[in-house]
Amino acid sequence: MCAASASATIRVRYGETDKMGTFYNARALEWFECVRSEVLREAGVPYTAMEERGVMLPIIEAHVEYLGRATYDDHLKLYGSAAMAGKARVRFDITIEHLDGGVPVARGYTVHAVTDPAGKPLRAPEWLTSALG
Amino acid sequence: MCAASASATIRVRYGETDKMGTFYNARALEWFECVRSEVLREAGVPYTAMEERGVMLPIIEAHVEYLGRATYDDHLKLYGSAAMAGKARVRFDITIEHLDGGVPVARGYTVHAVTDPAGKPLRAPEWLTSALG
Amino acid sequence: MCAASASATIRVRYGETDKMGTFYNARALEWFECVRSEVLREAGVPYTAMEERGVMLPIIEAHVEYLGRATYDDHLKLYGSAAMAGKARVRFDITIEHLDGGVPVARGYTVHAVTDPAGKPLRAPEWLTSALG
Amino acid sequence: MCAASASATIRVRYGETDKMGTFYNARALEWFECVRSEVLREAGVPYTAMEERGVMLPIIEAHVEYLGRATYDDHLKLYGSAAMAGKARVRFDITIEHLDGGVPVARGYTVHAVTDPAGKPLRAPEWLTSALG
Repeated sequence: MCAASASATIRVRYGETDKMGTFYNARALEWFECVRSEVLREAGVPYTAMEERGVMLPIIEAHVEYLGRATYDDHLKLYGSAAMAGKARVRFDITIEHLDGGVPVARGYTVHAVTDPAGKPLRAPEWLTSALG
Repeated sequence: MCAASASATIRVRYGETDKMGTFYNARALEWFECVRSEVLREAGVPYTAMEERGVMLPIIEAHVEYLGRATYDDHLKLYGSAAMAGKARVRFDITIEHLDGGVPVARGYTVHAVTDPAGKPLRAPEWLTSALG
Repeated sequence: MCAASASATIRVRYGETDKMGTFYNARALEWFECVRSEVLREAGVPYTAMEERGVMLPIIEAHVEYLGRATYDDHLKLYGSAAMAGKARVRFDITIEHLDGGVPVARGYTVHAVTDPAGKPLRAPEWLTSALG
Repeated sequence: MCAASASATIRVRYGETDKMGTFYNARALEWFECVRSEVLREAGVPYTAMEERGVMLPIIEAHVEYLGRATYDDHLKLYGSAAMAGKARVRFDITIEHLDGGVPVARGYTVHAVTDPAGKPLRAPEWLTSALG
């Protein structure tokens, strides 16, 4: 009954910082995507394979809370979990913290529709709902 | 009593699209920043001038709803407004739509702390609260 | 016999800066793309129309010289020109400078193959070679 | 007498692709930076430590040849080496290829000045020249 989950580690790239010295806010959504990829891979439904089967997960909502600084070369740990949100949506919950010490950096969620390649909503196929637990 | 507001137009860059053919989700937060800059400029407190006075507005929360597609070279119109949210926070509400026809692309908000350059929270100075109406 | 040319102006976005306070180096290639779009539009062959006709210009080489600083909210002017480089390649030459005063920021070039949507090299169609002068 | 060298692996992020389905050209410069960081770390002079000592390596030239496609989730291997180019410049040579099979993706180089935090050119300190071999 548990949601699918996974983690990933990244180092903050120089180009992900901004003149305030910390990471630029939009990078959080890019990092959220990194861990979504790992969650789906862990669940046995890598997103590349989903796309090949004609199932897309376009984003419809994103939320980020910025909890702490992270700067160039910092080693971060990303945790993500995915679960169905109704019959045609998938929700990912994500947290980002420093690898050493666990100091929080950001947390949030993204909600995705289940669609065909043309963007038409689909009822989630059984292989997806069972993979996401 | 009205909030400060402004608009901006952008063309979607090729590098802002992704393999799905529409804009990549994190770009919405970059576009939100473009219109925040214009809102502050219109209100008489350009962000560069605020930084020179030692007042920063680091982001603490962001929310985006994705409402429609936009792809390379599309002309988009961004609307933003800002208002104080308590004594030490500023909130921007933002919408993005197609310049021709007004079809919605995204909407959302960002919340920012008012801090000194070291990140220490400040009570918003009077010139800021009065600029934001 | 002149190459097609155009210019564009941009403001440096906060997210385009890095912790050194100036623009992050990869942004130059994103800005090069902005002016390439304008050069093709001015020449009467907007890139969206080219893609619809089945002609793509994938990049095969890029060169940038970084000449000066530019930071958040700076107003920049981009100049670009395009010309055929042989029968199956297009070359763009680009310069970026400060809008006020003309202080140089970067200059460089990009070289693009002419291909079909599958990436197969094409001899450039006559409408393209004549548009690029 | 050898240059300092290192490698790194990355997976292509969804946001690094563009509507042509391959990686967007400017991402190559972001990936070049990833391997530069590893080269300096391997050489015993991590860039964060260099910055703390007041030595910066701002980029002054970049060159990229695009050799092959890479798309979302592809596993790439990056190789980089660094060497002094005169007394006040460092040059990195970089290649990117697919981790499986070694098919080439891009190669190029970047040249960096050695400066103080204000951007004033420095003669490279001995600890840097000896680290870079």
